[in-house]
Amino acid sequence: MENLFDRHRGLLEDALKALDARGFWSPYPEAPSGRIYGETARADADAAFASLCQSVFLLPGHPQTGTAGKEVSPFGPVLSISYPTADVKTLIAASKAAAEGWAHSSPQSRVGLCLEVLARLNRMSFLMANAVMHTTGQAFAMAFQAGGPHAQDRGLEAVATAYREMTRTPQSAIWEKPQGKAPSIVMEKHWRIVPRGISLVIGCNTFPTWNSYPGLFASLATGNTVIAKPHPGAILPVALTVRVIREVLAEQGYDPNVVLLAADEAGAEITTDLARTPDVAIIDYTGSNAFADWLRTHAGHARLYTEEAGVNSIVISVTDDFAGMCANIAFSLSLYSGQMCTSPQDIFVPAAGIETNEGHKSFDDVANGIATAIDALLFDPARAANICGTIANPATLARVKNARVLGRVVRDSAPAGEGRSASPLLIAVDADATKAHESECFGPVAFIVKVKNADAGIAAASRLAREKGAITAALYETDEARILAAAEAFAQAGVNLSVNLIGGIFVNQSAAFSDFHVTGANPAGNASLTDAAFVVERFRTVMWRRLKTA
Amino acid sequence: MENLFDRHRGLLEDALKALDARGFWSPYPEAPSGRIYGETARADADAAFASLCQSVFLLPGHPQTGTAGKEVSPFGPVLSISYPTADVKTLIAASKAAAEGWAHSSPQSRVGLCLEVLARLNRMSFLMANAVMHTTGQAFAMAFQAGGPHAQDRGLEAVATAYREMTRTPQSAIWEKPQGKAPSIVMEKHWRIVPRGISLVIGCNTFPTWNSYPGLFASLATGNTVIAKPHPGAILPVALTVRVIREVLAEQGYDPNVVLLAADEAGAEITTDLARTPDVAIIDYTGSNAFADWLRTHAGHARLYTEEAGVNSIVISVTDDFAGMCANIAFSLSLYSGQMCTSPQDIFVPAAGIETNEGHKSFDDVANGIATAIDALLFDPARAANICGTIANPATLARVKNARVLGRVVRDSAPAGEGRSASPLLIAVDADATKAHESECFGPVAFIVKVKNADAGIAAASRLAREKGAITAALYETDEARILAAAEAFAQAGVNLSVNLIGGIFVNQSAAFSDFHVTGANPAGNASLTDAAFVVERFRTVMWRRLKTA
Repeated sequence: MENLFDRHRGLLEDALKALDARGFWSPYPEAPSGRIYGETARADADAAFASLCQSVFLLPGHPQTGTAGKEVSPFGPVLSISYPTADVKTLIAASKAAAEGWAHSSPQSRVGLCLEVLARLNRMSFLMANAVMHTTGQAFAMAFQAGGPHAQDRGLEAVATAYREMTRTPQSAIWEKPQGKAPSIVMEKHWRIVPRGISLVIGCNTFPTWNSYPGLFASLATGNTVIAKPHPGAILPVALTVRVIREVLAEQGYDPNVVLLAADEAGAEITTDLARTPDVAIIDYTGSNAFADWLRTHAGHARLYTEEAGVNSIVISVTDDFAGMCANIAFSLSLYSGQMCTSPQDIFVPAAGIETNEGHKSFDDVANGIATAIDALLFDPARAANICGTIANPATLARVKNARVLGRVVRDSAPAGEGRSASPLLIAVDADATKAHESECFGPVAFIVKVKNADAGIAAASRLAREKGAITAALYETDEARILAAAEAFAQAGVNLSVNLIGGIFVNQSAAFSDFHVTGANPAGNASLTDAAFVVERFRTVMWRRLKTA
Repeated sequence: MENLFDRHRGLLEDALKALDARGFWSPYPEAPSGRIYGETARADADAAFASLCQSVFLLPGHPQTGTAGKEVSPFGPVLSISYPTADVKTLIAASKAAAEGWAHSSPQSRVGLCLEVLARLNRMSFLMANAVMHTTGQAFAMAFQAGGPHAQDRGLEAVATAYREMTRTPQSAIWEKPQGKAPSIVMEKHWRIVPRGISLVIGCNTFPTWNSYPGLFASLATGNTVIAKPHPGAILPVALTVRVIREVLAEQGYDPNVVLLAADEAGAEITTDLARTPDVAIIDYTGSNAFADWLRTHAGHARLYTEEAGVNSIVISVTDDFAGMCANIAFSLSLYSGQMCTSPQDIFVPAAGIETNEGHKSFDDVANGIATAIDALLFDPARAANICGTIANPATLARVKNARVLGRVVRDSAPAGEGRSASPLLIAVDADATKAHESECFGPVAFIVKVKNADAGIAAASRLAREKGAITAALYETDEARILAAAEAFAQAGVNLSVNLIGGIFVNQSAAFSDFHVTGANPAGNASLTDAAFVVERFRTVMWRRLKTA
């Protein structure tokens, strides 16, 4: 049997270098191109996706006590895929039965297996794009990138970080303590990696792979068994991932139940029962603060890693490219209709307006500039559909509608292409008059918030980050000293800051191997993708020692 | 002003190498020798200690709303030292006021300062030995080593680990993403270390410096302010440490309140009020499972690192040096009268006895062999005093007395030299007949536990470690396959194992830079000294980025 670690060793070494350098690096091409993925890749994937729909999803050898699956594409079609399910007791028993062999495998074996899985997932990126598109409602291009290569990047980042941390302590060492004129005491010491237990990965509806892969691969690489619990609305991307992992596990002689799928349906979720199980030692969760609080209260026995909600802000002070700024913000607000954890919600603008390369712009000028830029961006329906995608959850549409009364409508939301869609709603509010913008309003809703001046905007945005959480912040400012002061304020609030973004880079974007996603330092999450803290408590290092005999 | 980081850079580099190599390394000489520490060091320290007693302990600039201090040496003398105290509100306010300047200092500045503190603590090791001896009841030699150089080693280990983790991410990087034929997107990214907040270090009675230094120095190096809350019975070692840190802070232009002393008295402890304060972001705790549980329930807002209680075991299967084995075990049981978190409690011996170089030994032969070895070790009262020291807490004496009825007394406890002392009580029990040995019985009490065979002993010891916690385990076995199987069983139970210890190395001993103390993988503690996990969540890494201009 070929050694998977050796097969992928070069990739791992490059990944380890990238972790330290933190420049641009990605081994998985993000372009949905036939030249890269094969000229028939897209057509093949479309056919494969079609054959998955209206059928039973096969997971050979998976424990089963029933079936589940009620996914409906936000673009319209009912997927009608029936997944095998098992009750909590059966899942836990199968996971525990698979644990010993996996825990005893070497870190190299596990890492090699994970890298092979990622390589296979990469090759099926077009199929994954279909699966992500028709569960999350993302447009195809975004579903391909975020659901495929970018998620694979984040998975690889977690595997490389896990490898680095597991191999930090040598497997053995000689300890020789001088004893003056007497012979030294010489001991041999041996260390091994001991996993924590069962790892429960709770997926979200909007980024079922991107947000699940880090925890899933970090836990797997460090020797834990994994139960993947997808959102009931986005099972397929996780199920496809689980199937690939189980295939490679079986090929390598491991019990495929090292990774299990815990599919369920809305209204009959098994998440709380799983989380409460004492055997669950690790939980990765992406979702609401409310359920994260529930997990903190009821699943305190497990090590919990969260990405939760927050309120992301942009502060506008001065710009030397007004049109570029408006266009950049317009794209950030429109991309996947504001359904990214990194999407901006509050745009703080001084009451007296701002200075720009086009001269002074009043508060209304700025608001209208952004509104106009959105209109221009989304003018062509096909382009609008490619940027906005659809709305994953019908409740989001209702939220957009209700938000219209929270202030003055600068730009109304409207359908944006195909399916259940909505372009950004822009609401102008005065920070002195309302707190409407201070709560998370998930979806295509942004507030243009009137503040006394830019400093007040920075203070308000950083306070919001501290109190409500934030994953991103942006600033438009030309004075270097004020940029550095703002960087300090946002750092203290635990939020990464992007300054003066113009052109083809957006505050929403977080690049693996360079940007740590979420800092763990405010209520938007207690973990950071992927720092050492994200992996080091998924295992422990245990020693045995004895006197060394000559 | 001399740069402290540069002054100690060589030491830091050696420490970083030692962390990876995990062989023997210690920069702080453990011998209480005048040739190393100065010919008058001991006499000077005795005089300094005498002048500290019956007086007011000075902490210039420390916030103060009252006084506390009722320490009594287990060797007899009442220390009568009056420490400044402040109420919780005052302590927290002073800590918060000191936070900003400290958080803004560079990792290098903080690490340099910590290394200077450790150098000064090392020079005053004789004074610290007096302070530790007369609060913990350790014999002088042990108080010197464990309270001085070995504690300093553990402090340095934490500082070096913190430095390694803080400097893992570069301060800045260039991220250049190719855009096909269009110009690349080039961004500059800047990262900074953001501390978590106020760090509360809750000390214990028996090892006030050794168990406090890792958390204290890890938090300090990573930019947190620290409130050191000593055990009411062992304030002086912590107060001396706090005074040195405050001196160096002031010399370097920092607010000395970066480190505060929270002295209190038994029956009027302020620990729970401090721990419940939302501003407390990190808690390091050494002590009972019960209070650790209280912290988990009531101080869930803080990141908690614990070392708790457990039941440490020795399993005897076969030995080719019966006398050496008995002597080694005798010393482990006698050292500081079993009041170490690493002291063995249960000695599992097969009912049919064991094979040895002296022929077959029955269960009673083994029990008597250990008893006889203790008698021989402690025959000379002066030597007994040097090994056993005294009993820190009067309740321990009562526990020893009550333990006599738990089984057959193989060797009775007796005074062991000076002060409030007690030599080991040995009790023979049958694992089939009692569970008396399965609860922690802190102090000089050991159970010789009759089990079916060695495998049953390993099973029982590793189960106890899993269920009750354990920090150490020892095995006497000559068959290599069974040694490896036992190593696996104890690893799965999260306990470090020592095999066939004979001569001058003992299961109780845990060497900084080589042995991780506690694994974090069983109920004896959730943290390990000092792995990456012990430091990486004491800070966060936050970025700001912008397009790079030419």
